[in-house]
Amino acid sequence: MNGAETLVQTLVDAGVEVCFTNPGTSEMHFVAALDRVKGMRSILTLFEGVASGAADGYGRMAEKPAATLLHTGPGLANALANFHNARKARTPIVCIVGDHARSHQAFDAPLSADVAAFARTVSGWVRSCASAVAVADDTAEAVAAARTPPGGLASLILPADCAWEEAAGPAKPRAIPPQGSAEPATVRQVATALRSDEPCVLLLTGEALLAEPLALAGRIAQATGARLMSQTFNARLQRGAGRTPIEPLPYFAEAAIGVLAGARHLILVGSQPPVSFFAYPDTPSWLTPESAEIHTLARPEDDAAEALAALAAEIGTPLPPAPTEAAHAGPLPTGRLSAEAVHRSIAVQLPAEAIVSDEAITSGFGMLHYTRGAAPHDWLQLMGGAIGQGLPLATGAAVACPDRKVICLEGDGSAMYTIQSLWTQAREGLDVTSIIFANRRYAILEVELARVGAAPGPQAARNYSIDDPNLDFVALARGCGASGARATTADEFNEHFGRAMHEPGPHLIEVEI
Amino acid sequence: MNGAETLVQTLVDAGVEVCFTNPGTSEMHFVAALDRVKGMRSILTLFEGVASGAADGYGRMAEKPAATLLHTGPGLANALANFHNARKARTPIVCIVGDHARSHQAFDAPLSADVAAFARTVSGWVRSCASAVAVADDTAEAVAAARTPPGGLASLILPADCAWEEAAGPAKPRAIPPQGSAEPATVRQVATALRSDEPCVLLLTGEALLAEPLALAGRIAQATGARLMSQTFNARLQRGAGRTPIEPLPYFAEAAIGVLAGARHLILVGSQPPVSFFAYPDTPSWLTPESAEIHTLARPEDDAAEALAALAAEIGTPLPPAPTEAAHAGPLPTGRLSAEAVHRSIAVQLPAEAIVSDEAITSGFGMLHYTRGAAPHDWLQLMGGAIGQGLPLATGAAVACPDRKVICLEGDGSAMYTIQSLWTQAREGLDVTSIIFANRRYAILEVELARVGAAPGPQAARNYSIDDPNLDFVALARGCGASGARATTADEFNEHFGRAMHEPGPHLIEVEI
Repeated sequence: MNGAETLVQTLVDAGVEVCFTNPGTSEMHFVAALDRVKGMRSILTLFEGVASGAADGYGRMAEKPAATLLHTGPGLANALANFHNARKARTPIVCIVGDHARSHQAFDAPLSADVAAFARTVSGWVRSCASAVAVADDTAEAVAAARTPPGGLASLILPADCAWEEAAGPAKPRAIPPQGSAEPATVRQVATALRSDEPCVLLLTGEALLAEPLALAGRIAQATGARLMSQTFNARLQRGAGRTPIEPLPYFAEAAIGVLAGARHLILVGSQPPVSFFAYPDTPSWLTPESAEIHTLARPEDDAAEALAALAAEIGTPLPPAPTEAAHAGPLPTGRLSAEAVHRSIAVQLPAEAIVSDEAITSGFGMLHYTRGAAPHDWLQLMGGAIGQGLPLATGAAVACPDRKVICLEGDGSAMYTIQSLWTQAREGLDVTSIIFANRRYAILEVELARVGAAPGPQAARNYSIDDPNLDFVALARGCGASGARATTADEFNEHFGRAMHEPGPHLIEVEI
Repeated sequence: MNGAETLVQTLVDAGVEVCFTNPGTSEMHFVAALDRVKGMRSILTLFEGVASGAADGYGRMAEKPAATLLHTGPGLANALANFHNARKARTPIVCIVGDHARSHQAFDAPLSADVAAFARTVSGWVRSCASAVAVADDTAEAVAAARTPPGGLASLILPADCAWEEAAGPAKPRAIPPQGSAEPATVRQVATALRSDEPCVLLLTGEALLAEPLALAGRIAQATGARLMSQTFNARLQRGAGRTPIEPLPYFAEAAIGVLAGARHLILVGSQPPVSFFAYPDTPSWLTPESAEIHTLARPEDDAAEALAALAAEIGTPLPPAPTEAAHAGPLPTGRLSAEAVHRSIAVQLPAEAIVSDEAITSGFGMLHYTRGAAPHDWLQLMGGAIGQGLPLATGAAVACPDRKVICLEGDGSAMYTIQSLWTQAREGLDVTSIIFANRRYAILEVELARVGAAPGPQAARNYSIDDPNLDFVALARGCGASGARATTADEFNEHFGRAMHEPGPHLIEVEI
């Protein structure tokens, strides 16, 4: 076996069975190894930001890492924005980056770059293979690093000669360190706070937002009168009819400050103390009120479900049943098409166990409200603020969960960063329905500018509008070998979306609002 | 004036008058300043890789920097691949990156990232503004750093508070250090070598490939029997009928070694000693034969024209006239469409002073041969090997030279990295004609795999072909608000290209080969 073959075999043995690729010459031995080693599914993307975003979506849903295969420093560079998002989501990913052969690195060849410097910007673990024989152990350690709680990006740089030279064989999977446990003293302090009459906020993110721990958190909140909240953005939230409702912290700093005002105890379950997304003149970044004491019940690397169970036991009294969302039976919208009409139509028609990749930005304001009683589903959000995640994330989620419908809620501006996703969806026959909210502008920037009291002049307006010329997402889908439809009324949207929910995808619906 | 206004005014005062943007919330004060300060044209892109590639194309043709405006670490990340290419091309660019307000940087907000770490991967100069008052001086120094010979990328990180707080005023442009001069001793050595009977190779790149210094180099070669060669890839080459012919060093290592075999003197004019693009088993990376002595007549930062003039004077004897290419009068191709037919059609129909952005990869093999006698034109190539440069580079060149036709020769695989360029071309009414060679595969990777003696298995083949499904570039152009046409015969191509050369653009022609 050559180094590349030991790499692929070690990945497969460690349970990594999907690789999102965009290879070049330096990676051809890895690519050749895909046919010599059984068990790795490679999925080609036309742009590396699709590969990194897809690996994020896959990892969030499969709860184990996919690999990515990228071409030297610039190939990795194209993947970095969505790796940034994955880093903030704490998604396990094994990133393989080809590099020049070691003997070639001293020369300033056109593609020469400091690959490790690119990798360090987003990775928790970076290593460059020192020999073909070392590749297998390096790979096993990369997988373990990616899976070490809470999960993260491990980048392994593979010089071409380490891929093509002979190696000994694959390496055994490494043991993964267990999740941490809540401190008993903290559990007691939190229980005491919750039993007091002082206002408490339980702030959840991460695996605490999966259905079971969330229900337990809901029972604890119900029993103690605590306010149950999630972070503004969450990697994965299980919600909908029959699930426990949870209120997100508002996006804008002044609103979040209002919601948290008066809290005496802020209890973190997988979350960090909230800070504003951006800083503004005369508005604090730190959102926890001075009145509040912060308790860290579970750090991101801890077992949040276990921590909540320990808390429930410490509280002692029998807990009431978890509150649950009632199923929504609202009528389908009719007439004029608006973002709200789309939300309401989706709420009615969303199938059970759907996965929603949410990058609708301003067009998604209110969406969480309308869909609270939709059939139970998973909601995946943008964790790092780097737009261009929605379509790739949906792509990877569909690979991880081929039996579930995936819906991508996407702003038109955001869609254009990684529109190449549509081709991979078409090629792999992925069951993704992309809904493009075509408001023809970067509306969030207009909102932000208005918030600081400025009115855009002509050049500023031209930086925030994308309506000259209009994008045609139905044509873009066709260009990528996929199909699309345009909805100009609520009734048309109902029909397109309803059909998409009953036919395997991919589908795209451009929503003119 | 606030910090952002002093930044824009300082750029304008230093001659930077175009800014390729993709702003976010952190940059809204910069965007607002575009309307308060006169003289800066901002050009919105839908993806940052378009902005960086356009700045490269602009800088190569305008011979002065454009600015880019990018949104925090991830926005910069999306621009890095084309900045890598620009770095290898030594193109002057001033990269402005917004960041969180300084007081906000201690918090782990979603968009928090080490912006400087991203910037250092590609920049010769990186600074983060320490206060609003410092912004103007920092900007003046950034422009000077970008313009310091041989030119490069200067990245200025602008925390949001340094943009919105009050500042004193703009800063005066800094003096730019002059280009270096050839060492008299080296000039004498090179003249002695050239006057000897020993085989000499003059290896040119950079400004030595502009028409006048190239003609002088051609006269020197003619007088002394030296072989006149350019690097394989060059940022800008002035060629065509009436210009001095020059032979590029072959791409593949074994061919380059064959060409250089027996040389006794390798004379570098702006170039570096040649190395292979990639390393291969059993093939050396270093291409200069052991028999050859290397002479550096002009380093990249030196005045190559002056060095060639000094060399001509040192040689002493009157130089013969420069050899020139005869004008090509070949007939238009007819019948079956092929890459060669496209090359021949372009050779006949290319208008004088056209600018060609060449990222045709395998479909461009032979193109330089067929177009040697075309009307005089500038030829811009991919300098860093990071594909996805062609369309953005053409976009920026068209902004720099609004009175010249720009032709982009683009592989279908390469086009998909930065297809969003078509929208900016349409919005700005840029006179670019993009020719997409749709061979439905990453053909260079198939060539490279064959060269190492491997046959692709099914998974490998699926990583190298992009024909399932086929991309439709006419639909992609329409999706971006542009128009396109498809050519399936040589006659159709002649007609589409001929019309494009007589009507303002943008145009796109998909070539089915």
